[in-house]
Amino acid sequence: MTQFPQFTRPTLLLDERRCRQNIERMAHKAHCLGVYFRPHFKTHQSAEIGGWFRDAGVRACTVSSVTMAAYFADNGWDDITIAFSINLRELPLIAALARRIPHLNLLLESPAIAEELDGVLDAPLAVWLKIDCGYHRTGIAYDNMVLLENTAEAIRRSPNLHLKGLLSHFGDSYHAQGKAEVTGLYHDNLNRLRQARQRLHTVGYNDLALSIGDTPSCSLVDDFGDVDEIRPGNFIFYDSTQLMIGACAPDEIAVALACPVTALHPERSEAVLYGGAIHLSKDHQPAGEHPVSYGLPALLSETGWGSPLPGGWVRSLSQEHGVVGLSAQDLAKVQVGGLLCVLPSHSCLALQAMRELHTLAGRRIRTMLSGDVDER
Amino acid sequence: MTQFPQFTRPTLLLDERRCRQNIERMAHKAHCLGVYFRPHFKTHQSAEIGGWFRDAGVRACTVSSVTMAAYFADNGWDDITIAFSINLRELPLIAALARRIPHLNLLLESPAIAEELDGVLDAPLAVWLKIDCGYHRTGIAYDNMVLLENTAEAIRRSPNLHLKGLLSHFGDSYHAQGKAEVTGLYHDNLNRLRQARQRLHTVGYNDLALSIGDTPSCSLVDDFGDVDEIRPGNFIFYDSTQLMIGACAPDEIAVALACPVTALHPERSEAVLYGGAIHLSKDHQPAGEHPVSYGLPALLSETGWGSPLPGGWVRSLSQEHGVVGLSAQDLAKVQVGGLLCVLPSHSCLALQAMRELHTLAGRRIRTMLSGDVDER
Repeated sequence: MTQFPQFTRPTLLLDERRCRQNIERMAHKAHCLGVYFRPHFKTHQSAEIGGWFRDAGVRACTVSSVTMAAYFADNGWDDITIAFSINLRELPLIAALARRIPHLNLLLESPAIAEELDGVLDAPLAVWLKIDCGYHRTGIAYDNMVLLENTAEAIRRSPNLHLKGLLSHFGDSYHAQGKAEVTGLYHDNLNRLRQARQRLHTVGYNDLALSIGDTPSCSLVDDFGDVDEIRPGNFIFYDSTQLMIGACAPDEIAVALACPVTALHPERSEAVLYGGAIHLSKDHQPAGEHPVSYGLPALLSETGWGSPLPGGWVRSLSQEHGVVGLSAQDLAKVQVGGLLCVLPSHSCLALQAMRELHTLAGRRIRTMLSGDVDER
Repeated sequence: MTQFPQFTRPTLLLDERRCRQNIERMAHKAHCLGVYFRPHFKTHQSAEIGGWFRDAGVRACTVSSVTMAAYFADNGWDDITIAFSINLRELPLIAALARRIPHLNLLLESPAIAEELDGVLDAPLAVWLKIDCGYHRTGIAYDNMVLLENTAEAIRRSPNLHLKGLLSHFGDSYHAQGKAEVTGLYHDNLNRLRQARQRLHTVGYNDLALSIGDTPSCSLVDDFGDVDEIRPGNFIFYDSTQLMIGACAPDEIAVALACPVTALHPERSEAVLYGGAIHLSKDHQPAGEHPVSYGLPALLSETGWGSPLPGGWVRSLSQEHGVVGLSAQDLAKVQVGGLLCVLPSHSCLALQAMRELHTLAGRRIRTMLSGDVDER
């Protein structure tokens, strides 16, 4: 507990070795299974970590905003998919970005937007149809033949647009548990995605690629079938939600929020942390008998942090406070003034909140969200 | 819907008139009811908005971190309470701050920390006992006579510490509804706080002040009893949670997230927004028949934004997406490429996520979280 005396406030620790292993494992799996690997960079938002993907042979990435695409373009990435339906208010920025990098790929889900996009472009650009296979966030419903066909038709009429394929996010896998359930959902969703492709095939659109992206499927499915491209993001860090799903092992989780302990309440076997919703986000997952836990507590160790403490949970988060329930035995290992780790429930949102990471060797890793000055 | 063409991404709008009215109303209420007004600045984190409190005669504030205290000290505030139990890892920063401003007030909840704090100080400083009246976040339980007395005793033994009073956060009011319930909880909690004071009185601690802070109580209670100080923060913006509680009217909500509309799904009467968990946070409140809604949708109007749309709700938030359910009639008023507002479920966390505000007149208001450059 005397480790990291320099960390006076909540600090997002990164186990670089685990992170690089997660990258290499997924890159290797994609290679072996014959799918193109286009990882989602929203999880790390860091040019430096992008470099670790390059080290693993990756040459293309996915992002979730035009701003993020511009940041990675600034850092040498020239094949980027913006996996977010086009925001018409950013059309001029999109057009500028399309002039800067040779391979910008965009998502469409309506004929009208295809036409608007085409109107601002100077050169051809690849687009994907965003398909809703049942998750109902956004996209063209896989069985909405009229909209599928009309959108594809609008793309065909647009001299600057080239239809590359069908892209979907099987987001329901985040509510599944275990390999069998995740794999079952994957094949159900993939069959719907294939139906959409088949329908377009019958009206003359051939050779359309399929792209999918969720971390549970990419981690647990052994055979991607005829999918051409995978876009997982979260797998580089994983988190306590992925652990609950069964998508990772405890020692594959590569980030932990180190939090100063400010009080102990042995009468209810709880520790109070400086570390709250503004550091971890309010995302949660079940933990043992507790349906809602805002991450999982773990002790610092000689080499990083340990496995989640048995029976431990994060009972509540307010703006800056976290309240952690621990067994009496584990509570005795925690001291006021020491650090206790929380494995985030959702590592993407914890990174977004914290804006930067610190390796176990004490090195700061900046992201596109970091300020220009050292904020610690 | 053609308002604010300059806002291409999610933007936190501030109705300055409403915000100043909220400040003036609470300052006036505190004055009339004879309580000292020490507003919590974690809601806005802005030196400029701090200035609006000065305009209303306010001279003291509350903050939730040492960093925030230092920021407001840099901006001319010299009477600051850090309403967060002392983080021993920041003791040197706390001691430095105590040297910079004449009135730094801190919270204690254990004898050991009183001693550690005393050891680093050069000059006397006021402390409050942090009391838990049943909310069970942190603090000394109001009926734990041994700990109360031991902590007060440690303060008395410390030459640099002066015990000012008992401070509590009646956080259970955030789960109440309506004036009667909030007022009932207030008096139950206040009676517990008085018990703690009475116990200390019997062992020789006299003239201890009482400080309380939650926005529902401060908004709805008509008689604060013998409370000496109130510390509400959220009331300057309010939000859809406070609306559900009944702590504010719709036209008192002073912030709204203006979100580009990226898709419409009339078959399920939904709009998809560029505006997600990284803009609003994952806090939620009930909305009509829906137990979980991540804010409330509202249309832009000529003068700002309208009331929450009847039956409207925010069904889901992912990292950058929001999915909003609207009546068919309201959905017809929304266009892809336009803006739709979401009244945040928790305005403090939305401000934290967005880091800056824009007034309806188009002026940018910076906070301590804003970058040095214009990030838009």
